Amino acid sequence: VSAGGTSPTELAPRILAGDVGALARGCRIVDERASGYRELLRELFPASGRARVIGVTGAPGVGKSTLTDALISELRKRGERVGVVAVDPSSPFSGGALLGDRIRMLRHSADSEVFIRSLATRGAHGGLSRSAADVLRVVEAWGATSVLLETVGVGQAELELLGVVETALVVVMPGSGDDVQANKAGILEAADVLVLNKADRPGADVAESELRLSLALSGTRLGTAPAASHHAAVSVSRTGGESGAWTAPIVRTVASRGQGLVELLTQLDAHRAWLSGSESGRGERAARVRRSLLAFLRDVVAEAVLAEATPLIDELALRVARRELDPYAASDELLAAMRGRPGLAP
Amino acid sequence: VSAGGTSPTELAPRILAGDVGALARGCRIVDERASGYRELLRELFPASGRARVIGVTGAPGVGKSTLTDALISELRKRGERVGVVAVDPSSPFSGGALLGDRIRMLRHSADSEVFIRSLATRGAHGGLSRSAADVLRVVEAWGATSVLLETVGVGQAELELLGVVETALVVVMPGSGDDVQANKAGILEAADVLVLNKADRPGADVAESELRLSLALSGTRLGTAPAASHHAAVSVSRTGGESGAWTAPIVRTVASRGQGLVELLTQLDAHRAWLSGSESGRGERAARVRRSLLAFLRDVVAEAVLAEATPLIDELALRVARRELDPYAASDELLAAMRGRPGLAP
Repeated sequence: VSAGGTSPTELAPRILAGDVGALARGCRIVDERASGYRELLRELFPASGRARVIGVTGAPGVGKSTLTDALISELRKRGERVGVVAVDPSSPFSGGALLGDRIRMLRHSADSEVFIRSLATRGAHGGLSRSAADVLRVVEAWGATSVLLETVGVGQAELELLGVVETALVVVMPGSGDDVQANKAGILEAADVLVLNKADRPGADVAESELRLSLALSGTRLGTAPAASHHAAVSVSRTGGESGAWTAPIVRTVASRGQGLVELLTQLDAHRAWLSGSESGRGERAARVRRSLLAFLRDVVAEAVLAEATPLIDELALRVARRELDPYAASDELLAAMRGRPGLAP
Repeated sequence: VSAGGTSPTELAPRILAGDVGALARGCRIVDERASGYRELLRELFPASGRARVIGVTGAPGVGKSTLTDALISELRKRGERVGVVAVDPSSPFSGGALLGDRIRMLRHSADSEVFIRSLATRGAHGGLSRSAADVLRVVEAWGATSVLLETVGVGQAELELLGVVETALVVVMPGSGDDVQANKAGILEAADVLVLNKADRPGADVAESELRLSLALSGTRLGTAPAASHHAAVSVSRTGGESGAWTAPIVRTVASRGQGLVELLTQLDAHRAWLSGSESGRGERAARVRRSLLAFLRDVVAEAVLAEATPLIDELALRVARRELDPYAASDELLAAMRGRPGLAP
């Protein structure tokens, strides 16, 4: 029913042909892990891996959705086909509130070359990265040349989601509190490109200095900031790398007025060129593929093992609750049973 | 060396005898998963599960550390032995900043009946809950009658951490932004007791109304709020449950002045009594033990499988990168290999 009478395998060629209706159904099947979703992914997989996948993350209020919206426009000007996957790992119940932020993006919905999808998946955290990666693959197979993965928040879940993208874009703004700044550190370290949005607000220079300090403290290499004019709303300080390493540039934008977007795209292009055109970039890309596959395998393997072993797990849980068995001994029993060699610890 | 010449198994009886030095070393061994940590946990396990384990979470700035500090004092007045485990899953690099918040707590460090430990574990997210659960067990074995697990933030990681506690206490404050409110929703739903801290600030009544609305929207049952006096800094609106279900009470506190702490402890006692004294409470407790064990098994099983299969995974990653193999097919190969029946999908 959810596939409108079309089986997942029948959907694949239609998605590959660029059919938006088929794409929407494919995304739903994959997101819900409905019957046939693995077969669908299998057929679409060879067509994935070509698009530029950009993660857009940052704390609530920094203007991520506005920036995403502006990025869509900019990419469309270039003639690109654009996909947007919006995920909100932090708040399973605030879909309504966030939808408001994303209404602006709906103006693109009349454009058949733009596809926007909110990920419905809830629950298990690792499962979220996996769902995001799966849906991204479907959108890529549809022929998107750029896909934006927009996440909300600056927590561990967002950090993991950034693992499935090619370029991680982290958005900050001037004047957010110290607490927020501090909490952003883990995310800052993961950034390939930093965007200082709302850069026309007071405190942009201070914010940029703080960003550099945070990055320095967290051990990330950072280029010296030219910051041509202190009052320019838009300035690009960037990259370099005689060493071959990528240095996260800081790009100032005022997304609501479209300022800084061209510069931002230039940096995104530069990062992509570095990934494919340099020795260290290719190494980094291979490392990301491997990391992402590892996270995926963790999730799928654990799911498979636990799904098969439900009766044993029920028994183990009972014995753990009675304190007859400690959790590590329980895991030993589970692994041994899984290998069909009962009583044998790994 | 880290055990000061004492092997993990020699540590166990000393921890069980209440030796704080042995406890500190035991926590470090377990947190770092140093040699012998499983044996140590195995020996301590029968002594765990008796303490009241309280999770304290909420956004930065709401006064969690001040509240934790006040809770320590209140529990000490009752003659309890108190453990505190502080975790910050969101910000791998902001330890320094957060330490500042926790300096207040150090005044308890002269008290031999109080043990405070920051969890050093970084990295994998599921691994964080597991480390927290492991360290909690060591602190319990030392003889703590109450253990506070303080986490920072309102993301998915915190939600998972709450899975290892008995009573989840979520702290909010008046006047935080709408975004923050919205993002708190997933955490609100997980709350057993809600604390409206800084309740002497303007907007406490509005904040309480918003809390009730958020809880109602997220489908949580909530008792009607008596809120005796609108200007009282402390008011308890609470519980009930002819249905037998637990209804998360909202407790107003001004932790910096110790206000509302007695009422808060009353609610914590009530939740504990409900867990052990009612049919639905016992069901809930059993469900939590099972959920927590499941999360633990996911983590350990995945770790074991991936650790054993490194050469195969390297090969699979290469084939996935070349688009010869999709990730689900890769997971099938891995599971088959693990079962010693190559080529056989699950």
